[in-house]
Amino acid sequence: MADCIFCKIVAGEISAQVVYEDDQFLAFEDINGQAPTHTLVIPKRHIDRLTDLQEEDASLVGKWLLVGNQVARQTGIAASGYRLVVNCNADGGQTVFHIHLHVLGGRAMRWPPG
Amino acid sequence: MADCIFCKIVAGEISAQVVYEDDQFLAFEDINGQAPTHTLVIPKRHIDRLTDLQEEDASLVGKWLLVGNQVARQTGIAASGYRLVVNCNADGGQTVFHIHLHVLGGRAMRWPPG
Repeated sequence: MADCIFCKIVAGEISAQVVYEDDQFLAFEDINGQAPTHTLVIPKRHIDRLTDLQEEDASLVGKWLLVGNQVARQTGIAASGYRLVVNCNADGGQTVFHIHLHVLGGRAMRWPPG
Repeated sequence: MADCIFCKIVAGEISAQVVYEDDQFLAFEDINGQAPTHTLVIPKRHIDRLTDLQEEDASLVGKWLLVGNQVARQTGIAASGYRLVVNCNADGGQTVFHIHLHVLGGRAMRWPPG
């Protein structure tokens, strides 16, 4: 997607602090981090929003979340704890329309989650 | 798991406002709802925490999140927007050690997510 900032990061046209990469996913630090550790995990394939996912995407979606776990391990917050968050559409607070999983930790997360 | 409150809900030993059920998952209203719509989605199989998930669970994990999408559609918040949240361990704010996906909507969710 030509106008998608996350696709530009995947393409190397915009730089990011990459934490993890494989053939299907990229993880990088959120530039507006809300916790000592705040990483975004995206599929390299452009998907606008959660509601665009289909049944046949189940495997991709599962791997996506497991990459979130991997990022938590790599960044040293797996044992202390972390929160995974995905926003969809306006009420969810989605601002970039390329699905992304937030991995937050390094402090006690509060409740409610926003 | 004999002492797990969510396993007791799956077994019908504790009642819950069920929103969705299939052979692998159960979704029900959070008794301490933090938004006009606040549903929990759990796998029927007992899994303590995110960090217990293995590579071979990718399909289950993907379906779990897609059930969250289904719940958003059923409860009428898919278009207006929603937030998916999973907490792991102390800093994540996990209180019940049977993995559960929070589906929140019906109001504008704030940032940061806790």
